[in-house]
Amino acid sequence: MAVEFPPLNAERLWARVETLAGFTLPDVPWTRRAFSPEFAQARAWLRQEFEAAGLATRLDAGGNLIGTLAGRDPARKPISTGSHCDTVMSGGRFDGIIGVLAGIEVAHSLREHGIQLEHPFEVIDFLSEEPSDYGPSCVGSRAFSGKLDASMLAARNPQGETLAEGIARIGGDPAALNAPLRGAGETAAFVELHIEQGPVLESRQLPVGVVTNIVGIRRVQITVEGQPDHAGTTPMDIRRDALVGAARIIDVANRQASALSGNPHYVVATVGRLTLTPNAANAVPGRVEMVLEVRSDSNAVLDGFPETLMEGVAEGLKALRLNASVAPVSRALPTDCSPLVMDAVEAAAGQLGYASMRLPSGAGHDAVYMAPTGPIGMIFIPCLNGRSHCPEEWIEPAQLLDGSRVLYQTVMELDRALRG
Amino acid sequence: MAVEFPPLNAERLWARVETLAGFTLPDVPWTRRAFSPEFAQARAWLRQEFEAAGLATRLDAGGNLIGTLAGRDPARKPISTGSHCDTVMSGGRFDGIIGVLAGIEVAHSLREHGIQLEHPFEVIDFLSEEPSDYGPSCVGSRAFSGKLDASMLAARNPQGETLAEGIARIGGDPAALNAPLRGAGETAAFVELHIEQGPVLESRQLPVGVVTNIVGIRRVQITVEGQPDHAGTTPMDIRRDALVGAARIIDVANRQASALSGNPHYVVATVGRLTLTPNAANAVPGRVEMVLEVRSDSNAVLDGFPETLMEGVAEGLKALRLNASVAPVSRALPTDCSPLVMDAVEAAAGQLGYASMRLPSGAGHDAVYMAPTGPIGMIFIPCLNGRSHCPEEWIEPAQLLDGSRVLYQTVMELDRALRG
Repeated sequence: MAVEFPPLNAERLWARVETLAGFTLPDVPWTRRAFSPEFAQARAWLRQEFEAAGLATRLDAGGNLIGTLAGRDPARKPISTGSHCDTVMSGGRFDGIIGVLAGIEVAHSLREHGIQLEHPFEVIDFLSEEPSDYGPSCVGSRAFSGKLDASMLAARNPQGETLAEGIARIGGDPAALNAPLRGAGETAAFVELHIEQGPVLESRQLPVGVVTNIVGIRRVQITVEGQPDHAGTTPMDIRRDALVGAARIIDVANRQASALSGNPHYVVATVGRLTLTPNAANAVPGRVEMVLEVRSDSNAVLDGFPETLMEGVAEGLKALRLNASVAPVSRALPTDCSPLVMDAVEAAAGQLGYASMRLPSGAGHDAVYMAPTGPIGMIFIPCLNGRSHCPEEWIEPAQLLDGSRVLYQTVMELDRALRG
Repeated sequence: MAVEFPPLNAERLWARVETLAGFTLPDVPWTRRAFSPEFAQARAWLRQEFEAAGLATRLDAGGNLIGTLAGRDPARKPISTGSHCDTVMSGGRFDGIIGVLAGIEVAHSLREHGIQLEHPFEVIDFLSEEPSDYGPSCVGSRAFSGKLDASMLAARNPQGETLAEGIARIGGDPAALNAPLRGAGETAAFVELHIEQGPVLESRQLPVGVVTNIVGIRRVQITVEGQPDHAGTTPMDIRRDALVGAARIIDVANRQASALSGNPHYVVATVGRLTLTPNAANAVPGRVEMVLEVRSDSNAVLDGFPETLMEGVAEGLKALRLNASVAPVSRALPTDCSPLVMDAVEAAAGQLGYASMRLPSGAGHDAVYMAPTGPIGMIFIPCLNGRSHCPEEWIEPAQLLDGSRVLYQTVMELDRALRG
């Protein structure tokens, strides 16, 4: 079944992307950290755009900006879309923001063409999807499903402000966050448009990806302990160099993840953060702390990876006279997308003549924290060289239009399927 | 030939060590950074002790505190001893200071027993042997032999003060440092007593070491460049993880130095300093900078080590899609001790009934920068577990007395040998 292309205004959509990306730290493009002055300015502008699109707009207790178009049946739960307008440092112009602005464009287009859905249609700009200066990520979507706990709310940014105070400062109500803002089953369906942030779609020249699941993430801190010594006077055969042990662990983690990857699961493992003490040119490193992050769609892989790694290096570390320990940092379970939403996205792409594939998401997203409230799914579009979280992050206007058309059509499909 | 033990006052010597060590940052024992208020207080006290020992005392243009006992022959060049009273952070109570205080005790003892040498006898507290907050180490001894160049004098500490300003602040005259304070041949001999800072003497239960040479030090910066990417979305087979490449280099450097060590040269190699970018748990490291330090008594080893290392890892780095480069940081040539001084130390130890061995110094010392002014040598005594530059650094009073007696007897031997 082929359909007309949705009547989206491509110029208006791209102009909004350029305007929103322009709210940035002037010297560090493209940076719009949640809770910053740039963020507050962007939010004020976004609210105007929500309203210009005809959305009834409010800020919820979790600091999420929510706009709603009424449905024909006021008893129905909303079909929701959205993402986030905050960025990492130098974070790019598309990660997050296209999911909000495509949602606004779908609403704007429905409204100006006099099309009313059976369900309410909701566009959400979630607060601080990226790791905030207070620590927690996905602040707004966690609040939505009641996953923002007291310890997160009490976390402080480097200036000493708590996350609760930050949420209050931007207009939320932290006192109301001890219960979910939206309960189980209260969202009819949620679908989020996002750049892939990886190279798969681009390398296969596919305009659309249907996300099957969002990988689980397990982070552990590995501490290697040796002995700090004078680097000039301590012979090789008696030193206890913690960095040499850490190097073995980094190497084996890389080989282990490479061997597991695609057999059959999605597996990546990274040591991205490392601190050594004393960190002086003339001192044997006495202690190394590093964070190992493993991501997979398989809980069994997440369960076993650090333990297998440490068993594999144990003999080598012993020969180096080193001790190593592993402590948990965080763990997020893999989140499956709902067949209802995956089928709707796939059908929508097919109706519009777009080739697509199903693929997992290696990055976390607000959709993870919408899952407790109802069926979720995601639409990916390719990005240049698979790069994100960097100034080089890029998509073409035509690619954004492809994804936004599929979002529009998916909303139509969901409205039809959920009615039946 | 056995002799009477030198008439040193062991209690006075140890009491001075305890007093000088007590000039420390109260919360970070044992810390007396050169140019700090603690250092200035220690210097004021030291000057009194120099004078109490009968030394004619002055501060030279390089900020060195120098005390002299006149010799019978005023035409002779001085026999000198000394070391430094500054420390690294938490740096211990013996490194440096015993070489100054044993020198004072030798002078004090000579004076109170009415013994006059043929040569003038000189005790020196060199300024800032440890790496200063301005960068350069061995500030005072470099000034002595004219090795403190304009770029070093212009180096700034974190507060923005230049080294030249720092030297002036503690009473030196930086304008006079464009020429050596002491020319070639102007020292009859220099001998420095120091803790070994390594485990060799302790493990062999020897009270005295005769230093044969002070190793050369070559430092290079190794930069590994890959690509920063999202750690969740970048598959293992296309990432360019700079830390994985750095880990290979660290591992091979350790194996290479271990294989070379003692065959026949003294060789140690250390990666003690490492910085990775972006250094975030969810980012593939795009760049690693690290300092490789190689120390050896062989210039050929220093010449070839980093180059052999990089050839050995080249294929592995290429397979990891990484680039690596090596840039010079600093290089100090190995410094041989003079047979005149080594023989005098060995003879002195033998006369006093102490077993000794010859061994290289893996640490740098002020003696390196005294070498251009005359024959040099060093006396090592063991320290607990070979540890130094840490709060646990320790020697027993009896060990200090052993070393001080050998210093006294060495000065006598040199006075005799140089007269002949």
